[in-house]
Amino acid sequence: MRVTLETVAKAIDGEIIGDGSIEITGVAGIREAREGELTFLANPRYEPYLEQTRASAVIVAENHRTTAKTLIRNSNPYLAFLKAVCLFRGEERRPDPGTHPTAVIAADAVVDPTAWIGPHVVIEPGASIGADVLIHAGGYVGAGAAVGAGSCLYPRVTVGEGCRLGERVIVHSGAVIGSDGFGFVRDGDRYRKVPQIGNVLVEDDVEIGANVTIDRAAMGSTRIGRGSKIDNLVQIGHNVHIGEHCIIVAQVGISGSTKVGDNAMLAGQVGVVGHIEIGAGAQIGAKSGVSKSVKPGEKVFGYPALPVAQAMRIEAVNRHLPELAQSVRALRRRIEELEGGTNGSPQR
Amino acid sequence: MRVTLETVAKAIDGEIIGDGSIEITGVAGIREAREGELTFLANPRYEPYLEQTRASAVIVAENHRTTAKTLIRNSNPYLAFLKAVCLFRGEERRPDPGTHPTAVIAADAVVDPTAWIGPHVVIEPGASIGADVLIHAGGYVGAGAAVGAGSCLYPRVTVGEGCRLGERVIVHSGAVIGSDGFGFVRDGDRYRKVPQIGNVLVEDDVEIGANVTIDRAAMGSTRIGRGSKIDNLVQIGHNVHIGEHCIIVAQVGISGSTKVGDNAMLAGQVGVVGHIEIGAGAQIGAKSGVSKSVKPGEKVFGYPALPVAQAMRIEAVNRHLPELAQSVRALRRRIEELEGGTNGSPQR
Amino acid sequence: MRVTLETVAKAIDGEIIGDGSIEITGVAGIREAREGELTFLANPRYEPYLEQTRASAVIVAENHRTTAKTLIRNSNPYLAFLKAVCLFRGEERRPDPGTHPTAVIAADAVVDPTAWIGPHVVIEPGASIGADVLIHAGGYVGAGAAVGAGSCLYPRVTVGEGCRLGERVIVHSGAVIGSDGFGFVRDGDRYRKVPQIGNVLVEDDVEIGANVTIDRAAMGSTRIGRGSKIDNLVQIGHNVHIGEHCIIVAQVGISGSTKVGDNAMLAGQVGVVGHIEIGAGAQIGAKSGVSKSVKPGEKVFGYPALPVAQAMRIEAVNRHLPELAQSVRALRRRIEELEGGTNGSPQR
Repeated sequence: MRVTLETVAKAIDGEIIGDGSIEITGVAGIREAREGELTFLANPRYEPYLEQTRASAVIVAENHRTTAKTLIRNSNPYLAFLKAVCLFRGEERRPDPGTHPTAVIAADAVVDPTAWIGPHVVIEPGASIGADVLIHAGGYVGAGAAVGAGSCLYPRVTVGEGCRLGERVIVHSGAVIGSDGFGFVRDGDRYRKVPQIGNVLVEDDVEIGANVTIDRAAMGSTRIGRGSKIDNLVQIGHNVHIGEHCIIVAQVGISGSTKVGDNAMLAGQVGVVGHIEIGAGAQIGAKSGVSKSVKPGEKVFGYPALPVAQAMRIEAVNRHLPELAQSVRALRRRIEELEGGTNGSPQR
Repeated sequence: MRVTLETVAKAIDGEIIGDGSIEITGVAGIREAREGELTFLANPRYEPYLEQTRASAVIVAENHRTTAKTLIRNSNPYLAFLKAVCLFRGEERRPDPGTHPTAVIAADAVVDPTAWIGPHVVIEPGASIGADVLIHAGGYVGAGAAVGAGSCLYPRVTVGEGCRLGERVIVHSGAVIGSDGFGFVRDGDRYRKVPQIGNVLVEDDVEIGANVTIDRAAMGSTRIGRGSKIDNLVQIGHNVHIGEHCIIVAQVGISGSTKVGDNAMLAGQVGVVGHIEIGAGAQIGAKSGVSKSVKPGEKVFGYPALPVAQAMRIEAVNRHLPELAQSVRALRRRIEELEGGTNGSPQR
Repeated sequence: MRVTLETVAKAIDGEIIGDGSIEITGVAGIREAREGELTFLANPRYEPYLEQTRASAVIVAENHRTTAKTLIRNSNPYLAFLKAVCLFRGEERRPDPGTHPTAVIAADAVVDPTAWIGPHVVIEPGASIGADVLIHAGGYVGAGAAVGAGSCLYPRVTVGEGCRLGERVIVHSGAVIGSDGFGFVRDGDRYRKVPQIGNVLVEDDVEIGANVTIDRAAMGSTRIGRGSKIDNLVQIGHNVHIGEHCIIVAQVGISGSTKVGDNAMLAGQVGVVGHIEIGAGAQIGAKSGVSKSVKPGEKVFGYPALPVAQAMRIEAVNRHLPELAQSVRALRRRIEELEGGTNGSPQR
């Protein structure tokens, strides 16, 4: 595919600084791009690559300085680039509707005729699969579970009994939706299992990463709000409620019954205790351990997590702790001298 | 289902405070319960909900104060509630014994006729499957492996060659029991693999969460003791021994050859180095990094983990580190003034 | 199997200290070994077991002191023991070449006739499977993907569309290679998905643990260098490049576009932010949170990660923070007294 830069700029709604007649043959990252390709610059960390890149044009922010490079300015360079990627990628291949002969589908399951059910998929009694759904090889949809229209389950996804996925949900390989919550009660010298009789509700436009685990509620529902995006290997405990449009990065763990407000962001490897609330729009720094509720819009960091400004002040001192301890020892010596002077140490 | 509160109280061995003739239609959490339902109060954090809940009756602790609400008192409210849940849930559906025609079972594998082997399950030569076992869709039982009576493997569980599960073991979807231990030895400029020729032994009444990984021993056995409960996404290294009735919360990692005593509790995201011992009854706080052995009954917390009381004292000071540094600077100025006075700073 | 110690010593290139004519019947760890067996001592922590072990002979380091035990000295006791393990284990069973009748293989996929394709495996159009490859039950190889000669995929591995595995690659159960990178861009009040159109390249002799997730590149390739070993439940983000002969221990997470140099070691549960460089030969201590690039050969530890010597000095003071705070309070009192003396506190 070859188009002029002008055509690309029009498609992605950008302003060209330079020659719009040059031909663009593809898209690539700023370090990998070759001549003829279009790239973008969104992260200031990559600014030095702007002069080095072999790309023929670069999408930059609206207020970006001009350079020798041909540029396209746009208020959101990454989003504009994403549109360019879609332009060059063309249509995705998708399997034709139908059911692979090796799939095992219960007689009373309802599968929309526009869905694709891949090899070795199992759909249990009472389950329902919506229009245009793709369930790839080895998927499992439990009894009475539902997968909404336009959703895509990559190979080997498990959707447990009674769990419900909304529309346009994407679930990556190996994810488990609806495993039992971790509920046990001590009875003498052993534990008894608390039956986990609730389910998981995943709302529209959620994306769930590879090998993620989301436990069903003890009673009621574990809930993932509309538009939220969950990265790989995340653990969501029973009765957790995730709000809408949240970002939950890889290997985060959220314990039972915690509520996460809309638009919250939890960075990688964060751990959150059970029964607390993370307010709407809160941001939790990577690897933080959160043991208390976080206010809406608050940014916290650390183990245990504290407001970011406080955590940074503490960390700045912490880095010089040995010098602080040394200072204290030096002051003690000086005080001893002073005391010696005023107390008349020679007499001692 | 409708029963009187009196009937429920008798079934769960509780003492009614209020009208025992009211009708109970179901069970629910204290915040979700509706009129006619029974709920419980075990965590003091939920005390405020006691007045607000729409539940018609609440199971509380033996010594709980009376209120306007109808109560059932029991020494263990959660356990009592669990019994009520079972009462209302009735019998679980389970598949009839037999083997799905798509399952692939080796000629010399031994499968008890009361077991259920689901679609696309694979059972390799020499494996044995006990009475009343359920192996759901896509399960894999390796050569010579054994699954004890009454156990349940949810969809897509892997039990590697030669591994052995006891009776009434529950394994959730995607768990891998018997992957190779991580054993390599440097040989010049590359690593050589150490053959992992041991297995995994899982004793009776163990529960293993979704997408858990338990490595086989290099030699001998990795062992999970009777009644222990392992949450999702936990990693257990080769030759680890977990005692009986332990609780291992989600995303914990335990490195090779470490021993965990009976009744120990490891909270979420804890990491434990290899070749150490966690004593019986020890408790490790969430996200702790444990690099030294922990005594029986000891409670530790932090990174690196310290006895909880010590960790809390340190943390209390740590939170005010910037103020401490400021104090030291202020003291230095005061000392300088004092020194100026006694040393006669004007002469300087 | 029974061989003389002399035969073993010759096979593993070791020097016998003691009677070479004794018979060896097997191999075992130093604590588990029984009479007749050979064991080894590599970790100094196990030195006390040298006198206690029931093993009939012990492989030790070249410069190890003599004892009452029969020894084999070798410059690398663990490697020597590994050779002994292979000697006693004999040949591994492997399935005969062929394709299980339940496997679903696209007409235009290329499968080498010496490969074994197990039950319920799915191989999509355009995929290629090399000589002597083993793909165990439930494996999935996406469209246009490739698995190089001599590789082994344990049950239920997913290799996504267009991903390429080199020769002699081992992938453990449940691993997902080629899930979508976590790329979203905010567009008003919701997130839009950035198409992930790159792939994953896994070079020769790599080993990948159970339930690992490796995301495909947004564009270009996520790359795992030759000979690197990745433990269970590790997360590798999109466009990450791992060098050659790296060791990545369980539950590590590496965020997008980060580069890890050759021979680096990342201990368990380490987290690394995106877009940085871990230099060749760098070592990252367990559970560290790495937010800045690490120099080649540097050893870092902690959260946030600092050079190990600095981290240890800080930690040593941190452990006595409460005493430090107390010292500061005591000094303040002494200064107040001094000030009282010199300033004439009685007048105040």
